[in-house]
Amino acid sequence: MASEIIVHEVGPRDGLQAEAQVVPSAKKLEWIRALAAAGVDIVQVGSFVHPEKVPQMADTDSLFRSLAAEKTNGTIFSGLALNEKGVERGMACGVDLFCLGVSASDVHSRRNTGMGTEEAQRRIIAAAHTPVAAGKKVQVSVQSAFGCGFEGAIPEERVLGIVRSYLEAGLSNISLADTAGHGQPDQVRRLVNAIFTLSPGVRLTCHFHDTYALGMANTLAALECGVTLFETSFAGLGGCPFTKVSAGNVATEDFVYTLQRRGMRRDIDLENLIAVAKDVAAFFGREMPGRVYKTGPIPHV
Amino acid sequence: MASEIIVHEVGPRDGLQAEAQVVPSAKKLEWIRALAAAGVDIVQVGSFVHPEKVPQMADTDSLFRSLAAEKTNGTIFSGLALNEKGVERGMACGVDLFCLGVSASDVHSRRNTGMGTEEAQRRIIAAAHTPVAAGKKVQVSVQSAFGCGFEGAIPEERVLGIVRSYLEAGLSNISLADTAGHGQPDQVRRLVNAIFTLSPGVRLTCHFHDTYALGMANTLAALECGVTLFETSFAGLGGCPFTKVSAGNVATEDFVYTLQRRGMRRDIDLENLIAVAKDVAAFFGREMPGRVYKTGPIPHV
Repeated sequence: MASEIIVHEVGPRDGLQAEAQVVPSAKKLEWIRALAAAGVDIVQVGSFVHPEKVPQMADTDSLFRSLAAEKTNGTIFSGLALNEKGVERGMACGVDLFCLGVSASDVHSRRNTGMGTEEAQRRIIAAAHTPVAAGKKVQVSVQSAFGCGFEGAIPEERVLGIVRSYLEAGLSNISLADTAGHGQPDQVRRLVNAIFTLSPGVRLTCHFHDTYALGMANTLAALECGVTLFETSFAGLGGCPFTKVSAGNVATEDFVYTLQRRGMRRDIDLENLIAVAKDVAAFFGREMPGRVYKTGPIPHV
Repeated sequence: MASEIIVHEVGPRDGLQAEAQVVPSAKKLEWIRALAAAGVDIVQVGSFVHPEKVPQMADTDSLFRSLAAEKTNGTIFSGLALNEKGVERGMACGVDLFCLGVSASDVHSRRNTGMGTEEAQRRIIAAAHTPVAAGKKVQVSVQSAFGCGFEGAIPEERVLGIVRSYLEAGLSNISLADTAGHGQPDQVRRLVNAIFTLSPGVRLTCHFHDTYALGMANTLAALECGVTLFETSFAGLGGCPFTKVSAGNVATEDFVYTLQRRGMRRDIDLENLIAVAKDVAAFFGREMPGRVYKTGPIPHV
């Protein structure tokens, strides 16, 4: 098992896009800065989506501009771009890591982007050229990689086909997103192992939602297969607004605490992550799915 | 992996003992009957504890009497007895399966029973004689088997010592309870494998709390090591009132759904389990930790 696991916090994007209430930019910046200060490696600041489609993400460009003006503790700030227009916006406002994705579900892809999987894939690979040429980091994802609320099961071969296209285009920083939360540990092991067989050098990220209570079990299954990058969300917030049934991501503080109990990532300040999760819960005024922010770490251990 | 998994619903005991609000007997019976009708194998009706110590369990004897008067779909009704007095009460009111336990944590044992681990163990093994002699089913547990909120880590050798004593006393129906939720999958595999090595024929049950978000991961780790009995709680309610930090059990409907997605226990009526969990959440007027009762099963799968 790898000793070094990279944590990509997607709460400010995947978490906040799922909430009806729009969070003021100042509050978002407070959370993002606290996460960066706590030692989270990558923070996803927002999504370059049309502000009328997802008003919660309307301030993404201005957030990046605010963050670019500051010293940032080495944190990588990522942004989700759905198309070339999104890439342009990201290039203009100082994104460090561009996250681009395609849904393996044709129906989900159309609802999310207006394009089917094949067309979206061509467009995404083309859109990746600009940031790659500019020396920016680029991660490409397969959304709905483990099943889709509209289509049901997604054939593994379809996911592998998208991964192959990415690899052939020279894009080897790849994320598998279980958008609907349908993944099961056996399935995770099978797909992850197939991808490592396809490309032993792939930089593979996993992203699990806890819709059916298997988020952490899937995370550990992937970790035990050698995946070293994970996308998680503060307090377990999250969910794609264009999927059928959605629920939160694995909570960042739950994941980091699990790592720390295994002797990993003790450099991340868990107390600060817990403080952010508590503040997120207080802001929305309800109990969040995360566990550890409620209990704190185990006493005397 | 075993094809047949036994589900022991402990919500009416472990779930309701953790709630400040006392549930009326009629409502408890409604839930218990619905669980039995749904095909849950064993339902833990209550605990024979002093009614002043845990008023939520004061009606345990009368609940058993009500259930004994009915045809029960083959369901086994279990009751938790803390001592000989509890066994006497259980013998008088028609308990099918007696659950007796010892905490591997001396501090937790004293808070829970007023006795240290060694004394409690002698008393429990002695108390088990009566129901065994009467031909009743008896399960003996090791509580705090994976750690204790007061003591911290619990040496595996201490847990194995209690298991050995049970086996030597002819008690081979043994439950490992992660009372505080400190267990981790690696630890679960190690302890479970050690017990199967000690006694390949042991009838081993596992009971996990989701305090630190590892409840389902631990459950699947145990399942994959060959454990075939699990204690779970409706809607993920639960928690020992005499432990330091407690949180709910793995939710019964989440666990059953996970089994069904693996092709197991399709005979259990998931919709009815979900209806009970929804009613439990409605009764207490808050969102519960369980996942599947909120979302239902995956559409089109």
